[in-house]
Amino acid sequence: MATQSLPRENAISEISQLLGDRLTTSNAVRDQHANGECGIYTPQPPDAVAFPHSTEEVAAIVSICATHSVPMVPYGVGTSVEGNVTAPYGGVCIDMSEMNEVVCVNESDLDCTVQAGVTRKQLNQYLKDTGLFFPIDPGADATLGGMAATRASGTNAVRYGTLRENVLGLTVVLPDGKIIKTGGRARKSSAGYDLTRLLVGSEGTLGVITEVTLRLYGIPEAISAAMCSFPTLEGAVNTVMLTIQSGIPVARMELLDDVQMAACMRYSKLDYAPDHTILFEFHGTERGVEEQAQMVGEIAADFGGSDFRWTKTTEERNALWQARHDVLYACFALRPGSMVWATDVCVPISRLAECLLETKREIDESGLLAPIVGHAGDGNFHVGFLLEPGNEEELARAKRVNDNMIDRALAMGGTCTGEHGIGIGKIGYMEAEHGDSVDVMRMIKRAMDPQNLMNPGKVLNL
Amino acid sequence: MATQSLPRENAISEISQLLGDRLTTSNAVRDQHANGECGIYTPQPPDAVAFPHSTEEVAAIVSICATHSVPMVPYGVGTSVEGNVTAPYGGVCIDMSEMNEVVCVNESDLDCTVQAGVTRKQLNQYLKDTGLFFPIDPGADATLGGMAATRASGTNAVRYGTLRENVLGLTVVLPDGKIIKTGGRARKSSAGYDLTRLLVGSEGTLGVITEVTLRLYGIPEAISAAMCSFPTLEGAVNTVMLTIQSGIPVARMELLDDVQMAACMRYSKLDYAPDHTILFEFHGTERGVEEQAQMVGEIAADFGGSDFRWTKTTEERNALWQARHDVLYACFALRPGSMVWATDVCVPISRLAECLLETKREIDESGLLAPIVGHAGDGNFHVGFLLEPGNEEELARAKRVNDNMIDRALAMGGTCTGEHGIGIGKIGYMEAEHGDSVDVMRMIKRAMDPQNLMNPGKVLNL
Repeated sequence: MATQSLPRENAISEISQLLGDRLTTSNAVRDQHANGECGIYTPQPPDAVAFPHSTEEVAAIVSICATHSVPMVPYGVGTSVEGNVTAPYGGVCIDMSEMNEVVCVNESDLDCTVQAGVTRKQLNQYLKDTGLFFPIDPGADATLGGMAATRASGTNAVRYGTLRENVLGLTVVLPDGKIIKTGGRARKSSAGYDLTRLLVGSEGTLGVITEVTLRLYGIPEAISAAMCSFPTLEGAVNTVMLTIQSGIPVARMELLDDVQMAACMRYSKLDYAPDHTILFEFHGTERGVEEQAQMVGEIAADFGGSDFRWTKTTEERNALWQARHDVLYACFALRPGSMVWATDVCVPISRLAECLLETKREIDESGLLAPIVGHAGDGNFHVGFLLEPGNEEELARAKRVNDNMIDRALAMGGTCTGEHGIGIGKIGYMEAEHGDSVDVMRMIKRAMDPQNLMNPGKVLNL
Repeated sequence: MATQSLPRENAISEISQLLGDRLTTSNAVRDQHANGECGIYTPQPPDAVAFPHSTEEVAAIVSICATHSVPMVPYGVGTSVEGNVTAPYGGVCIDMSEMNEVVCVNESDLDCTVQAGVTRKQLNQYLKDTGLFFPIDPGADATLGGMAATRASGTNAVRYGTLRENVLGLTVVLPDGKIIKTGGRARKSSAGYDLTRLLVGSEGTLGVITEVTLRLYGIPEAISAAMCSFPTLEGAVNTVMLTIQSGIPVARMELLDDVQMAACMRYSKLDYAPDHTILFEFHGTERGVEEQAQMVGEIAADFGGSDFRWTKTTEERNALWQARHDVLYACFALRPGSMVWATDVCVPISRLAECLLETKREIDESGLLAPIVGHAGDGNFHVGFLLEPGNEEELARAKRVNDNMIDRALAMGGTCTGEHGIGIGKIGYMEAEHGDSVDVMRMIKRAMDPQNLMNPGKVLNL
């Protein structure tokens, strides 16, 4: 058996010569890289963790691993929740967090290029004097490389799109160590296959993203927020649906059910009622924002919504959105000592009410505590199961609810994950969602990574 | 030699048994399918043309061709301009124009599914009582399958995006005859590789698109148009650039240089001045449209633009846009008996003025007649060389101007084609634009179409 591990040891030793103490096999660091955030997945540490500083170093690491047939796991800051960064086959974790330079900002073209380890907050901090911002906001302060790899989105995708729409180009190290650049800085192109979009969402299974070129947006002249509570979840969802159908360009439209709202208010020490609630944000000109809010207010009233509560100051707006962003911590606080298993689906908006209500009914019947929060404007919602660690029976109940929710979403023409990715958690639903298309994905994976070294065990069962 | 053609004859005979008189080998029909619109490419007829009525029939045709190793060329209505539908290796042209049913419209989800042969005008006609429309408008009344295959865009991509952003899912017959469905009806998904985006823009080289699921939009409450002329091309381009940078959500922003404007006015018998001109269209609420126009008017004035001329009536607006859409015919009229070779590039908007001016200077120096028209808000412009058929020397001059324009666009971080696709016309620029990425495209092509039967000779030199 000792001889079997030799290639791995040789690879680690070669990478060590290249990176010095930026390659580590310490148990503490390996354990830190054994899983993303929370979830129900068994942490599986890599054999070593590398911290490259350049695309060329990544290429060298990948070449060495390819030569010795050693698996690799690209890693941002580990905020993914579907086991996307576990190392079931060990190997070398390529931690991109030290590749965190903003390469360039082209203010007049509204784009920028960043190294993969730059986080979204870091980028927006960097941009703060330019009048520009990068809007996509999955809550966690994820790296932009990781966000591209999982096709992340979040609260304001309803207006600005997801990483699919906002990545213009990539620098990628392929599984054989070759460096390629995809896409470009033109706003559109019909020149050949869209490798950028193929790689966005491929979760590190086709290569390591080392640089990302992103669209930026001008900070709106006016931003305002509002909240509205509803006596029924249905009324809230119908408000969302009609707002979208009316083409009102809301920037954010977040739905919190009564359980989640109660948790958030308690955790964030805010005093809004623990009812089904929608948080809105409007971006535009002063007049445009006013107009949008008025139109949405009228729709909400039709569905039994309370009067809009306006957050007139930036501070108040930030407090409200901070409460939204802290849902995960609010959930933990709801059942101290619990772990949170976060899952999501996305459906056509006309089916959102039905999907949500049926799911909520099943959660209630199951006896589980599982708040719901939704990027409702996209038809996307999250369920956070609060589980007792080690309680297998409880986990089995949660899995049943999750299975049924996914079956329901797929039957409605939806997807098994709106923004978390497949990782290992949803690999079993790929065939149900995509049918024979999965064979084409496998074909591409085998062509680009014949040794199956790039984040093996994720996205596809080969 | 006779034996070599046997497989082809066998394939045609088998398809004929399947389709009856919907498979033809008549010279007239073959010649009709030997090229797209205009251009400088030698028409190359297929051996036969098939007119399937269902995805299953397409799958049967493809299976037969695959079995006999016969090339296939998917065909919409032949409006492409880069030789995208010629048949350099003969084979079977799969004409999708009789698959022209709107499969379903989901008004509440703002989406629809159409067979590939439905044209954009047909779809909008179908939608006319729903309050919805499909905005993407490349000028020609192309099929939606063809538009997806070439990643088409056009005049209002600046607001609504291209086919890349507006295709939610596809039904595709793979090169071995297998039918797959990609994507879905959810607005976003992070479930696996984005095969939809890989196939959009693949120009029929990876499979035959038989159905397309598209995003739809509510017809805006208010639409208004304006035009503004400029003493210099630079002033016009700078107006476009600042409008984009200011985040004003114009729906259309078309640039016509003085030559093109003169041609259009003469052809369409309108009386606007033959100066460098921008045509604007604004979509939104009554107030929003007013506000946008006012902001753009102020920007234009700063760059020497004339007073906005408002087109207050639908009739007047339509006349203006019809003139824009008739540029190709206006060009023909400018030099009777000429052929038009249409080419396009797209650059980051900050480089548009430089790229345009330098190109115009070269056109002038070359002594050629070549009007310029631009989807300027995207950084995309077209040059239409008016050439004497058969004049090799003139063609060589045009090719030099085109080569230099593409080199210039690529050096600026742009692309060799914003919306026409690669076809055979731009295949030689793929390496210059994409570098080693082209190897990845080849890898995918070989994995998915190992016999190289799907639209061979296009997009990639294998």
